[in-house]
Amino acid sequence: MVDIDLRLYVITDERLTLENGLVEKVRQAIEGGATAIQYRAKNKSSKQIYREATALKKLCREYGVPLIINDRVDIVAGIDADGVHVGQDDLPVEVVRRIIGNSKIVGLSTKTLEQVVEANTLPVDYIGFGSVFPTTTKKDATLSGIEMLKEAVKLSIQPVVAIGGINADNIEKVLQTGCKNIAVVSAVFSANNPLKAAQILKQKLLKGRRWRA
Amino acid sequence: MVDIDLRLYVITDERLTLENGLVEKVRQAIEGGATAIQYRAKNKSSKQIYREATALKKLCREYGVPLIINDRVDIVAGIDADGVHVGQDDLPVEVVRRIIGNSKIVGLSTKTLEQVVEANTLPVDYIGFGSVFPTTTKKDATLSGIEMLKEAVKLSIQPVVAIGGINADNIEKVLQTGCKNIAVVSAVFSANNPLKAAQILKQKLLKGRRWRA
Repeated sequence: MVDIDLRLYVITDERLTLENGLVEKVRQAIEGGATAIQYRAKNKSSKQIYREATALKKLCREYGVPLIINDRVDIVAGIDADGVHVGQDDLPVEVVRRIIGNSKIVGLSTKTLEQVVEANTLPVDYIGFGSVFPTTTKKDATLSGIEMLKEAVKLSIQPVVAIGGINADNIEKVLQTGCKNIAVVSAVFSANNPLKAAQILKQKLLKGRRWRA
Repeated sequence: MVDIDLRLYVITDERLTLENGLVEKVRQAIEGGATAIQYRAKNKSSKQIYREATALKKLCREYGVPLIINDRVDIVAGIDADGVHVGQDDLPVEVVRRIIGNSKIVGLSTKTLEQVVEANTLPVDYIGFGSVFPTTTKKDATLSGIEMLKEAVKLSIQPVVAIGGINADNIEKVLQTGCKNIAVVSAVFSANNPLKAAQILKQKLLKGRRWRA
């Protein structure tokens, strides 16, 4: 298993591009305390995805923060990113692992406890679980809620990253389930000041850690 | 360079799925004389693309016909397809070649004579050129016309595959330019009988060859 700090896992907003501040905003997220970056683009051309991922790779290397690419294993190979995150509608993780080898991080989105249990048997390094709260980023996201997250954390043999509508106001509820890692998009990128927004989340994550020390 | 018969290069219609006859229609295209198949899907999930490409790989192996995947280099690696076809908005061919190695076919779409000349310096096995005629398959396709195709064939050091609105009524015009290879989508898959439609195109291609013998 690859060792990776997933506590504040910041996922890029598809609306950000090289022209409108993608790199600068991700830099702010990192300076605010992001421990891992996921580059996510579903509706951009492969050329644009390649260009943006290349720019983020350079940035993440500069800060020593891992860069995970959503879905596109070819982009991981093309830019030598640190790993890939796949959903239930992406390539099967066994296939991903065959393409990508064992030295890269592979993460998998889960939405149900059945998927969490199944993931225990799969060659993944962590799982995402959610949506914990309603989210505006992903339409048709399945709502799992806090209680099911608690179960997911108990059931999973892998690190669990909670995702979906998490922000500075509800992050404590997430941490109280025993989940140590959160993923966010809008909580950072829809903020006027992404650096400050990331800092506030990070402080609450660190505080959360002390509660259980 | 990989040796590949590109004369009747049949590209799948995105509307076809495993549930509505994708494999059966491609089988008919092959039995009608298709010499190469390209699987093209821009709006399907990676999981669906993987499932469909896996089914087509099995079919193409059965008939000894090469299977080229549009854009998605990860799918090529995942199913061990014969090659990849990229457009000007996909991954740069140098990157594709680095991911995929030298034993796979790499094709590149070109729309202008400048792109044809540039492709002469790139690690590709063939180029597509067009749209030769107006097409309903690709919105916003650049129209190049027959005269420019003639120039492209003269300028290119790689095999040229003419594409865009080619059908049984206008194929002779294409062959008269000196172009030996045609790519089609709707001429085969919008036909009531894809096998018959492919056969008619193939007969004209073979006849075209005699004209210049």
